[in-house]
Amino acid sequence: MPDHHPGAAAAEPRPRPVTFVNRFTVHAAPEEFEAAFARTAEYMARQPGFLRHTLARHVDRPGHYVNIAEWEDAASFEAAVAHPGFRPHAAGLRALSSSEPDLYETRRTRTADRPAPAPGPAAGPGEPS
Amino acid sequence: MPDHHPGAAAAEPRPRPVTFVNRFTVHAAPEEFEAAFARTAEYMARQPGFLRHTLARHVDRPGHYVNIAEWEDAASFEAAVAHPGFRPHAAGLRALSSSEPDLYETRRTRTADRPAPAPGPAAGPGEPS
Repeated sequence: MPDHHPGAAAAEPRPRPVTFVNRFTVHAAPEEFEAAFARTAEYMARQPGFLRHTLARHVDRPGHYVNIAEWEDAASFEAAVAHPGFRPHAAGLRALSSSEPDLYETRRTRTADRPAPAPGPAAGPGEPS
Repeated sequence: MPDHHPGAAAAEPRPRPVTFVNRFTVHAAPEEFEAAFARTAEYMARQPGFLRHTLARHVDRPGHYVNIAEWEDAASFEAAVAHPGFRPHAAGLRALSSSEPDLYETRRTRTADRPAPAPGPAAGPGEPS
């Protein structure tokens, strides 16, 4: 690609993170889907450009899940899902569920002003470090 | 299953984080919606239990956005949206968009093994701190 701005060539391109939102309707046992998803997520976490994902289960609609994955840019995400190593994971999830994928450009992220407690099993309260 | 372990009674209840996913169809200018959303997000970021949110714009469908908000538990989220201080924000967004809200129980979060670069405008590369 030609670049006629010599000054711009030295600057880092600004990252354009993307947010992938995939809604799943699961027709298998939830535990089976979650276990397959965990294996897929471990695979994805090793791919270049992966930042973070969350798998969550609808509070009112049994069998409905959403996966939200953040990637450094669209190219990293596209490369990860096109990689041959992803195929068995995709096939495994497809055997357990149908899905509605949507790709979004991340516009704004805001974390809480105070430190967030770690989710999941917590250390004992009041333990001095 | 009853739990008769007296030690367990003293333990902190395990947090049950939730993920709120709200899909927006915007019928105003995107900049206007994003500005209103930024004000709403600043309000929400001050509410107890708020952890993090991401607003993202669909890459293929103009006017379609998703907001993903993580909260410490469902009660914190419900309290925040029921609070009178939230009403003008909700009304402001409703004037610009329609929305499809879904509440999910967070089941699994995984971050990348390597440190993630900060999104948004970055400091100059190679600047010593």
